Amino acid sequence: MPEEPRRRPGGRSALVRAAVLEAGLAELADAGYHGLSLEGVARRAGVNKTTLYRRWGTREALLLDAIRARATARVPIPDTGSLREDLLALVRAAIANLATREVQAAVRAAVALSPHDAALAEAGRAFWAERLDVDGAVVRRAVERGEIAPVDPGPVVEAVLGPPYFRLLVTGRPVDDDFLVATVDLVVRGLAR
Amino acid sequence: MPEEPRRRPGGRSALVRAAVLEAGLAELADAGYHGLSLEGVARRAGVNKTTLYRRWGTREALLLDAIRARATARVPIPDTGSLREDLLALVRAAIANLATREVQAAVRAAVALSPHDAALAEAGRAFWAERLDVDGAVVRRAVERGEIAPVDPGPVVEAVLGPPYFRLLVTGRPVDDDFLVATVDLVVRGLAR
Repeated sequence: MPEEPRRRPGGRSALVRAAVLEAGLAELADAGYHGLSLEGVARRAGVNKTTLYRRWGTREALLLDAIRARATARVPIPDTGSLREDLLALVRAAIANLATREVQAAVRAAVALSPHDAALAEAGRAFWAERLDVDGAVVRRAVERGEIAPVDPGPVVEAVLGPPYFRLLVTGRPVDDDFLVATVDLVVRGLAR
Repeated sequence: MPEEPRRRPGGRSALVRAAVLEAGLAELADAGYHGLSLEGVARRAGVNKTTLYRRWGTREALLLDAIRARATARVPIPDTGSLREDLLALVRAAIANLATREVQAAVRAAVALSPHDAALAEAGRAFWAERLDVDGAVVRRAVERGEIAPVDPGPVVEAVLGPPYFRLLVTGRPVDDDFLVATVDLVVRGLAR
């Protein structure tokens, strides 16, 4: 494929991609979603805007890719051999990621604007469908080990992520580690055979 | 107190108050938070704006009162004698309330704007501190009946409300009744003695 640059990790294409995605999140946090444009992101990243249009096409596609890259880098999928430890590591990393300025700005903007912006809503649904499936590995492995009875993994992950998201975004109550531990313990006890 | 109108339920003062609070939520849903003003609410309710300034002072205070009145009217605190049934009735009513156009607009606006608006953030925290305490009655009663061991009621209510709020506001996955039942069942099993 002569027209497509190679995407070796650490290659030039990968470095440009990483710079653009970071610029996208930074631009969103600074300018807000209404102020976000591929032109602005290109300027911030020091990249030609035609590169961005060719590669992502829309700001929603770029934002989806940026959030996905952040989550992949900062919320690794643990495999400790214990459901409780895996869920704790997962929710701690997820909430630390959500608490960063850039991710929080992206999530809060998506909550406010999704009802009025079909492309943004679809990007959000695509991210979460993929992400809950990836996170679900910790539940599937617990089932395979015989630690818990067979169960749909998605709602288990949502039972762990939902309460701290609710605190951080909605109620404003403190999301401290005690709360994360209590949330995970309640879910793990509920799943115990 | 000669300067304060009497507030018998159904009296003129109560009717004006109810009309103003409904107008506040409708105005927010139509005009957005940035377009919300006590003048606009007064016009919509057909009430003199000085009445609103005297009684609420700010749009945040009026909004807090409006959300509180909605929750009190539409999310009654059940007392069926069973924790599972009480939590189910509570979460079904809470999510039906959240799914209305007016409440959803208020909550989404609060999520987006709270980090930049201290008065709005404080109104949100005040609402939730009060509301989680009120909702917690179903957990306190289950403890008193000996149905579950003593437990902090707030996090139990958050474990039930958090996942459907997360779906409705963040992931966009469908909040159907099966999901509410599964969420409540997981929590109740986690609390079983």
